[in-house]
Amino acid sequence: MKKYDVIIIGGGPSGIVTGVTAKKKHPEKSFLMIKKEEKGLVPCGIPYIFHDLESIDQNQMSPKPFVDAGGEVLVDTAVKLNTIEKTITTESCKEFSYEKLVFATGSSPLIPKFIEGYDLEGVEYIKKSYSYINSLKKKTDAAKNIVVIGAGFIGTELSEQLAKCKDKTVSLIEAEPHCLYRAFSVDFAEKADEIVKDAGIHLYTSHKAKKFVGEAGKVKGVLLSNGVTIDADVVICTIGYVPNCNLAKETGIELDDRGTIRVDNYLRTSVKDVYAVGDCSQTIGFITGRTDNIMLASTATAEARVLGNNLFCINLLRHFAGTLSVFSTEINGKVFASAGAIEQTAVDLNVQFVTGEAQDVDRHPGKLPGASKLIVKLIVSPGNGEIIGGEILGGKSVGEMINTVSLAIQKAVTVYELISFQVGTHPLLTTSPTKYLLIKAAENAIENIKNKKESC
Amino acid sequence: MKKYDVIIIGGGPSGIVTGVTAKKKHPEKSFLMIKKEEKGLVPCGIPYIFHDLESIDQNQMSPKPFVDAGGEVLVDTAVKLNTIEKTITTESCKEFSYEKLVFATGSSPLIPKFIEGYDLEGVEYIKKSYSYINSLKKKTDAAKNIVVIGAGFIGTELSEQLAKCKDKTVSLIEAEPHCLYRAFSVDFAEKADEIVKDAGIHLYTSHKAKKFVGEAGKVKGVLLSNGVTIDADVVICTIGYVPNCNLAKETGIELDDRGTIRVDNYLRTSVKDVYAVGDCSQTIGFITGRTDNIMLASTATAEARVLGNNLFCINLLRHFAGTLSVFSTEINGKVFASAGAIEQTAVDLNVQFVTGEAQDVDRHPGKLPGASKLIVKLIVSPGNGEIIGGEILGGKSVGEMINTVSLAIQKAVTVYELISFQVGTHPLLTTSPTKYLLIKAAENAIENIKNKKESC
Repeated sequence: MKKYDVIIIGGGPSGIVTGVTAKKKHPEKSFLMIKKEEKGLVPCGIPYIFHDLESIDQNQMSPKPFVDAGGEVLVDTAVKLNTIEKTITTESCKEFSYEKLVFATGSSPLIPKFIEGYDLEGVEYIKKSYSYINSLKKKTDAAKNIVVIGAGFIGTELSEQLAKCKDKTVSLIEAEPHCLYRAFSVDFAEKADEIVKDAGIHLYTSHKAKKFVGEAGKVKGVLLSNGVTIDADVVICTIGYVPNCNLAKETGIELDDRGTIRVDNYLRTSVKDVYAVGDCSQTIGFITGRTDNIMLASTATAEARVLGNNLFCINLLRHFAGTLSVFSTEINGKVFASAGAIEQTAVDLNVQFVTGEAQDVDRHPGKLPGASKLIVKLIVSPGNGEIIGGEILGGKSVGEMINTVSLAIQKAVTVYELISFQVGTHPLLTTSPTKYLLIKAAENAIENIKNKKESC
Repeated sequence: MKKYDVIIIGGGPSGIVTGVTAKKKHPEKSFLMIKKEEKGLVPCGIPYIFHDLESIDQNQMSPKPFVDAGGEVLVDTAVKLNTIEKTITTESCKEFSYEKLVFATGSSPLIPKFIEGYDLEGVEYIKKSYSYINSLKKKTDAAKNIVVIGAGFIGTELSEQLAKCKDKTVSLIEAEPHCLYRAFSVDFAEKADEIVKDAGIHLYTSHKAKKFVGEAGKVKGVLLSNGVTIDADVVICTIGYVPNCNLAKETGIELDDRGTIRVDNYLRTSVKDVYAVGDCSQTIGFITGRTDNIMLASTATAEARVLGNNLFCINLLRHFAGTLSVFSTEINGKVFASAGAIEQTAVDLNVQFVTGEAQDVDRHPGKLPGASKLIVKLIVSPGNGEIIGGEILGGKSVGEMINTVSLAIQKAVTVYELISFQVGTHPLLTTSPTKYLLIKAAENAIENIKNKKESC
């Protein structure tokens, strides 16, 4: 039986980054990655396979950096784990022993078994699988009427891409009152609704899919909770993901209340020498310290860097205050981004907050070509002025601007500090220095803190 | 004699932001701004008047937000100050008394009196004056051969804009070995040289202007230190700015060794109730704590917010570690930005450093439309891993990305922290989460710290 120092199950972003980081740190150790399919996909690039990219192959993600660093890759599926003997067995009956084992098994689409007709032909998902998406692309290419269920990031981005394709009718169904409702405060989410509609998508918010209507085993439409039926050649469900933790569970590795593998700050599970990273591992929410269900490649890779550096010993201390969701997306040319708390989550968690808001254009003077309107909202703790969340809507620059907010939250920056924050500005690139929006929003938050009556 | 609670001399960015901030905070106080010209200009937008903007009026900056807040504006020039009587007299013989006086007098172009022919007709400057620039624009419109002296930001941006105009030959002369040499390490500055040349500018680095050659009192060419003469209908000198401190000096207000008005952390001068903010006030360098000569609208407005909040009492404590230069510019479609230390300044100041570098494209997958190559360099103190500088070259997103670096420097973030920094990424907006460049550069810096031999 071949022994590896490290075996990683999974070849997504967290598996690759863990492997590359740890292998570079320990070139003398042997590493094996077991992944299900030869070809992988950039997970967040999947929606763009449906229009903007010329082919699925432009969205491939490969473990090449890991292989280049000296890691080995086996295309197979791990089916049995013995944590006493420290061995792992694959579907093709190969057996290996390990010193350290990493679960980087990711997540799979939630199948809506609670909706009648979920098992009809033509009811599809966004699986992070090259072969599956390749075949789905052919189906959507041939379809005229497509219904997407769930207006989170993936559903909204996918709908936008499909709506860009010629001669398709795209409908997007969302049970919540707005698109992107988990990531943005209501005023921002309302703007997302408008932009989605402007993109030519038929948007049904506050509507549930009651039944997938079929004919001869094949989906023909979606019956909504209001009694209306929408024609559908293909239905794509993007209503969430569930962690791939079956093997861990069978092996007796402890899961948390959300079904993900419980880990400590260093991604160590309840079993010695077994680690879990990415979507399959526990997330602790930044504000509450409770378990959370954030599944993002960016979060996964941040964990993977921690793990890669600390796999053989705790070498890089992690003062971990929990996982912050940082989201960004572009819909029909408008960029939405958020980091940390939004108004709804703050209310749900009984966290007192004020907002600080500001808007302007992202050039100065605003007549310069390429200017977009920019809107910033900060969510701020009134007790000490600490920034606990931020949302930005505007042009392309928002994608990086949110990372300044993200760093501010992670470093517990207050609005009192932020107002004298030294920024770089340029006519062709940013708002003017007199009105740099993170600062103007901080000023507004300070006003609102002053005016806020203590209510607890 | 009319008395104002606050009189601000100057209507540039620092004057306006001081006025707006303080007036909003103290609506009951009376404010007067004395400014030289009716119409003002967005200072950093001036180069774009020469091509990208349709007219100079698109680059106007007005004190309207100050007036809207209830401030008064007088177009006049302050000529005499009595700090005992607390009165100020203007060129048109008006006299006012004040409780608080703010110098926001800005800076003026350095006139190269050391170059023969500097006083010829057609030797021009980038003055922050509407009427002057309006007339200069007419002169450059009529000129065929234009020579710009000094390849700092303004000279480089101006040359790029002039070179976009039809039928002009634009030459740019720089005494240093590269363009933007004070703001970027040599490898970045070399790339700036290439981009400047690609923009069709005749670039002469490591060349000095020895003489402005004239005929009948009008400039006809520039004689370089190597003996070559370049034809010129107009010569524009952008070799630096000097603070406008004559009135302060005459009044006996203390200046520092660089000729700017000495101030404390709260912009208070040596004379009670007299303040100075922006280009005319002292700058303390972030790394050394020595006087520095940073003149940026972004820096000026950061100071102005501090002053506006603390004009009547110290209400917002400022833990001031000095002014960080944060620069960004776009030349011929490529964006350059830097914050804090660069290699040359670190060497000059005997600051030990390692660099951390990384490059990739700013989309993921990289085949997505609009992708630009992105290069990041961090300058890091090897002692504790603290980030003391950063430089980024790439597309538009660089303009905001540098502000994350800027915040990291201001909050003393280390590369050890940065490698588990939680970021937001998106296919259409950023590098992939597996390779987010600030993190990759931090990882590279950690490698370089390990490999660095102690040399002091």
